Amino acid sequence: MFHAVIMAGGSGTRFWPASRAMFPKQFLRLGGDRSLIQATVDRIQGLIPHERTQIVTNQQLVGLVREQLPELPLACVLGEPCKRDTAPCIALAAGLAYRQDPDAIQVVMPSDHVIQTDADFQAGLRLAERLVLDRPERIVTFGIRPTYPATAFGYIQQDPSRPVEPSPAANVGNHTPSLPRVVPTAVQQFREKPTLEVAQEFLRSGQYLWNAGIFVWRAKTILDAIRRYAGEIMGPIDKIVAAADSTDFPTVLAEQFPLIQGRSIDYAVMEKYPEVVVVPAPFAWDDVGNWNSLARLVPADTEGNHVVGEHLSLDSTNCVVQSSGNHLVVLAGVSNLVVVQTDDATLIANRDQEELVRKIVPALQSRRQDLV
Amino acid sequence: MFHAVIMAGGSGTRFWPASRAMFPKQFLRLGGDRSLIQATVDRIQGLIPHERTQIVTNQQLVGLVREQLPELPLACVLGEPCKRDTAPCIALAAGLAYRQDPDAIQVVMPSDHVIQTDADFQAGLRLAERLVLDRPERIVTFGIRPTYPATAFGYIQQDPSRPVEPSPAANVGNHTPSLPRVVPTAVQQFREKPTLEVAQEFLRSGQYLWNAGIFVWRAKTILDAIRRYAGEIMGPIDKIVAAADSTDFPTVLAEQFPLIQGRSIDYAVMEKYPEVVVVPAPFAWDDVGNWNSLARLVPADTEGNHVVGEHLSLDSTNCVVQSSGNHLVVLAGVSNLVVVQTDDATLIANRDQEELVRKIVPALQSRRQDLV
Repeated sequence: MFHAVIMAGGSGTRFWPASRAMFPKQFLRLGGDRSLIQATVDRIQGLIPHERTQIVTNQQLVGLVREQLPELPLACVLGEPCKRDTAPCIALAAGLAYRQDPDAIQVVMPSDHVIQTDADFQAGLRLAERLVLDRPERIVTFGIRPTYPATAFGYIQQDPSRPVEPSPAANVGNHTPSLPRVVPTAVQQFREKPTLEVAQEFLRSGQYLWNAGIFVWRAKTILDAIRRYAGEIMGPIDKIVAAADSTDFPTVLAEQFPLIQGRSIDYAVMEKYPEVVVVPAPFAWDDVGNWNSLARLVPADTEGNHVVGEHLSLDSTNCVVQSSGNHLVVLAGVSNLVVVQTDDATLIANRDQEELVRKIVPALQSRRQDLV
Repeated sequence: MFHAVIMAGGSGTRFWPASRAMFPKQFLRLGGDRSLIQATVDRIQGLIPHERTQIVTNQQLVGLVREQLPELPLACVLGEPCKRDTAPCIALAAGLAYRQDPDAIQVVMPSDHVIQTDADFQAGLRLAERLVLDRPERIVTFGIRPTYPATAFGYIQQDPSRPVEPSPAANVGNHTPSLPRVVPTAVQQFREKPTLEVAQEFLRSGQYLWNAGIFVWRAKTILDAIRRYAGEIMGPIDKIVAAADSTDFPTVLAEQFPLIQGRSIDYAVMEKYPEVVVVPAPFAWDDVGNWNSLARLVPADTEGNHVVGEHLSLDSTNCVVQSSGNHLVVLAGVSNLVVVQTDDATLIANRDQEELVRKIVPALQSRRQDLV
């Protein structure tokens, strides 16, 4: 049966002031009706029921997850006592799923991306599931066709000489006419975030896809793989999973989880695993990496501004604006700005220098801890 | 005895969002500890006591004046039932002062300018008083040495062939070494706001001063002048003044004042009066016409921004920033902006297009009456 793992432990500083240490990006709406994490849960509706959906987040964010996702049973939200990157998180989620259902097939995905449409995403998941059912040892990952030489993503090199054909019954994911035909292939290699020159080379070659961190596998397969390639993770994980149904679980989790060394699943397993298949994503994907991304998510108004909230524009264009509540943001004779208003802080940034936004939170640590 | 009239009926839209219809510019602090109207009252302290200070404002602003100036006796604040420009306001204040003190000498001044220092201003007033004591028919006005060809002010042409020497005892106002020697002269003519070309001509000639709307006269003199040159004003004013000590006063004021046609004192009297003396102001003056003015009032910080309130700047310069309360405004990679944050609205404007700010309030009339 299909299970879902939604990784929601991320924190970031690029959506300050809307995001805060205790309210990170995945909880923001960013122009939509639902927050990114809510949309992530919505996205699998009809394919994977809530009871088989596991949200793994930071312990301090468990309350916020429950507030935003009251429809989920309490047991679906797991709080890590500390940050340990993706491999321990995935090992724990796989261990828990395997204990419940030895045949569990899992989709693992981040909680802070925008994916459209839900139907296209589910078609992609069904294709991946078929590929795993065809060969249980397979790990399936989705790759995003790059549109520019991004240096902020890892890449996956396809091996065009080794296409992977799913068994016919599952030939789904090619139903959206606007999307290119999906041809899964074996993975030649995983590559970490490249330099600009290397990224340009990747783009030219046509063989590289962005690594979106979305995986489909049998829980047993990834557990075996972690045990083989990063076995030291499994000691603590086995103890935690063994305590899953006991009242000791929180104590064991709090004691054992911090003993694990943090590692990413890409580094711990993917780069070494021999049977990884990459599926060019049959869905639209956006990592929503910073405020500029809002310009892609929110259509421009008649003045050419991308606006969420109350706003008046006079001779102003090409701005990204978000205001909260009933607060009015007025632009007069300006262009190319990001303006984000919240109750206690307002950001005015040059759209061409968005990297500066990441410096704000560190600069506030000593001065205005209340705004971090 | 010296009496003061502070005209505080003004409303404006150039300090939106800090100023509102019910909270106009004179009530703003604009970088100082005291609001402009508070500073105006402070400015004459020691020279004119509160009991001889009359604030004339809009009826709807009386409460706000009292809140900001609790030290003033209640009778010092007079609320006009409607806007009628400066001539009716001055006629009423002169009538009331004359009734109380037939020898009253009045200084009449706006409430929304910045003047420094108080000592220099008082020196100027003492000089003007002496000029009036020397010849009781005189009207004395202060002229500001122009620093650029402003089109937003009226001008006063000096007549250098007719210098006016005060009697020696009162030769004050020349005591501040940094200020040029003050040579009062007769006024050749008053000129309304000029075109840019004309303003440039005024500047070149060296004979024109800005009309700052500050006058010194005997109450009797200005009453006689209004009666002569704009007599129709005095019918209602005489009725109002006659009711000054009666319980009918509010009713008579409400009935009679609106009957007067609104006119400026410059147009009604000054342009026609034969004995006007202009004193080049022996004090620093700023009309604080818009948010850009804050750059003159608030010294630049180390990044070159002029900031009132909580602020963090990253690679940003030449901005004028005002935030309220504990709210933090962060600038990242921007320059040459005006940023004004209030509880319910935020302005981001190009400093070179500040004229756009005046268009905001009209644009909000139909959409957000709550912010006007």
